[in-house]
Amino acid sequence: MAEKTPRAVGGNWEAEQLEAKLSRRVHAVAGAYWGAGVRQEPPPVPPIMLAGGVPDPAFLPIDDLVAVSERVLRREGPEALRYGGPQGFLGLREWLAADAHRREGLSLGPEHFTITNGAAGALANLCDTFLDPGDVAIVEAPTYPGAMRSMRSCHAEVLGVPIGGDADGLAPQALEKCLEQLRREGRRPKLLYTMANFQNPAGVTMSLERRREVVELCRRHDVLIVEDDAYGDIRFEGEALPSFFALAGGQGAVRIGTFSKTLATGLRLGWVMAGQPIVDALLRMRFDLGTSPWPQRVVTEYASSGLLAEHVKEVVPIYRRKRDAMLAALDERCSRFARWDVPRGGFFLWLELSEGVDPATLTEAAAQEGVTFVGGRTFFPDGSGARYIRLAYSFVAEAEMAEAVLRLGRAMERAARRPNTQ
Amino acid sequence: MAEKTPRAVGGNWEAEQLEAKLSRRVHAVAGAYWGAGVRQEPPPVPPIMLAGGVPDPAFLPIDDLVAVSERVLRREGPEALRYGGPQGFLGLREWLAADAHRREGLSLGPEHFTITNGAAGALANLCDTFLDPGDVAIVEAPTYPGAMRSMRSCHAEVLGVPIGGDADGLAPQALEKCLEQLRREGRRPKLLYTMANFQNPAGVTMSLERRREVVELCRRHDVLIVEDDAYGDIRFEGEALPSFFALAGGQGAVRIGTFSKTLATGLRLGWVMAGQPIVDALLRMRFDLGTSPWPQRVVTEYASSGLLAEHVKEVVPIYRRKRDAMLAALDERCSRFARWDVPRGGFFLWLELSEGVDPATLTEAAAQEGVTFVGGRTFFPDGSGARYIRLAYSFVAEAEMAEAVLRLGRAMERAARRPNTQ
Repeated sequence: MAEKTPRAVGGNWEAEQLEAKLSRRVHAVAGAYWGAGVRQEPPPVPPIMLAGGVPDPAFLPIDDLVAVSERVLRREGPEALRYGGPQGFLGLREWLAADAHRREGLSLGPEHFTITNGAAGALANLCDTFLDPGDVAIVEAPTYPGAMRSMRSCHAEVLGVPIGGDADGLAPQALEKCLEQLRREGRRPKLLYTMANFQNPAGVTMSLERRREVVELCRRHDVLIVEDDAYGDIRFEGEALPSFFALAGGQGAVRIGTFSKTLATGLRLGWVMAGQPIVDALLRMRFDLGTSPWPQRVVTEYASSGLLAEHVKEVVPIYRRKRDAMLAALDERCSRFARWDVPRGGFFLWLELSEGVDPATLTEAAAQEGVTFVGGRTFFPDGSGARYIRLAYSFVAEAEMAEAVLRLGRAMERAARRPNTQ
Repeated sequence: MAEKTPRAVGGNWEAEQLEAKLSRRVHAVAGAYWGAGVRQEPPPVPPIMLAGGVPDPAFLPIDDLVAVSERVLRREGPEALRYGGPQGFLGLREWLAADAHRREGLSLGPEHFTITNGAAGALANLCDTFLDPGDVAIVEAPTYPGAMRSMRSCHAEVLGVPIGGDADGLAPQALEKCLEQLRREGRRPKLLYTMANFQNPAGVTMSLERRREVVELCRRHDVLIVEDDAYGDIRFEGEALPSFFALAGGQGAVRIGTFSKTLATGLRLGWVMAGQPIVDALLRMRFDLGTSPWPQRVVTEYASSGLLAEHVKEVVPIYRRKRDAMLAALDERCSRFARWDVPRGGFFLWLELSEGVDPATLTEAAAQEGVTFVGGRTFFPDGSGARYIRLAYSFVAEAEMAEAVLRLGRAMERAARRPNTQ
């Protein structure tokens, strides 16, 4: 058959003409979350990555996963390789119910869970299920950018309640002010998206008293609490506090969980814990016939046999050491240029740049020095936050931590305007 | 911690009150696509399944998948277990581009593909990207029910163009009539969803002449052709005809593919082949951070090493034998109660029941006899089609085929009204 180059034909479907054919939802999101997927030239200095909230690849339990996967495929291959349905593997949901009982004494069954394509898939499913055009979704400012993207794709307005300047997380007074204002305007806030444990990106943990006040406020205003607990198991210090789901008695609160941070982001396995009517509604808005049962069954076996708990016990001290190594290096190299608090868990440090440091110059200088991070503006619904940067200590090798922060310090030095030039 | 039963608290979030809080999109779909995920009592007679379009589990290449998965995890575990991005693994997209060149001489690159959670995920992504409330989507009647569900969740109106009573598929005259009518009404048909090869459920294959006419019609009316080619590789007879993508020169046509039917539905690996502007738009409407790179990389290795082609070569004759066994059994047991055509590929036979057979009684009798199929109404946008049933010969073991059709014949006998009772 003759060679064909489809794009040579031209016509009505090139980028410019295409825009008018796309749904309004496409126009509500700024762009793709990920860059174009083609091979690119490597940068001149191989950068050290402090950008992504990804587990350390050196400690992935490859041998265990190979063994468990082989066992699962040989024992239940036909089921692992067949449609599993949108709610996900029953055995995994039974394990999650048992886990919720171990953690918080909750009496739940598999019907209170639905398995999703990571926490991101859970969020998208929740947004599709609850948000109409013009609805309001409340987030912490700063917050996880993917959540805002999902909300905006539903034409919801995203309002931020600040959590800065305080180690106890979202301030109930600020939330109340926001809710009262909306009520006066006759607008309907549909949900509050919150990360109460080791918040991404700010690292703060909400106090028990504040959690109780937030539950009471949301009950009064009939707002669904969506708690994203992606980082809750990466705990270095302190006792676990009750989830919103437990505090609210399972009414008006759902909890998103994931194996991405404890085990591997590439499994794309998250879940929603919710009352059964909400689970039923979430399933009505699933159109993908469910994620692959194969990784679901592998993780079920891995978790049920105790390997997951062992793995978490092994890696949490590693992340604590990395946090401490990053803090020590920052103290040495960057204390003139930024300030930060110490998170009691999770993957991130959240730095506020000093007045003298120019954020745009810092980004450029860091690329030249060979270190990546995420600029603060992406985390704020109003695009503010240029004076912040998020550093992940999770992915970088321990041996590279000092070098990473050395490079960051050099970049900050270059971005610091000298007093006499101001 | 004390035992807590979340649902005991009561409140504002039970099923009845919840409805008013859900998005309008939820209300646009009839219900979940899959039943509730709790353990159920097995039926009294274990049924033989002629319902799902699922490959025969006896021929799943478990040994090869175990070996390839171990190789992939040991060689590239950190990449296989880390976020891969919404567009999907570059290596898999490169293989798909090379495959498109082998098949149709198309000059494509990895940028012309995006990996999805099965063909169902591809469809949902396409609907989100193109369909606004009030838009029209045209389907073949009958068609794949999941496609209609995705379209309706976007508040699109689904219009069917009949393909019955003809072995050559969608009739261009009927499509033209529909398009002209819409134009007169000033309505905008956004896309035509078509399965030109071994159509699900009707089994028909569209002739080359008709494909050319459909391309011309859609170009004239500026309608996107969405070709779902899930079954195209399960070919028993005849030569492969050009895809709409090739016929349209890649402009105004996209092709959905999947490994579900050739390899395993549970991999949840599908893709869209499209011009780059459309791929870019599809990625803007992805919020799940991509499916798991692990199965993606396993399938890439499996396909690149030639194992997939070998597997398809092995299983296609098996499905042909099963089709023939089902046809022979139907001739013997059911010819008084229904008529059917012979599909040249795919997984399904499409039966039109004789006047004397009552469809509701048949469904009930079949459940009692122990055989499952899918009733025709689910495949028609207007809920017509009660006189049809779809039988899948793919999943049932060859040794059970005669028994399955014997049961179906008994059920038909019970559902056939006798002339003297009419």
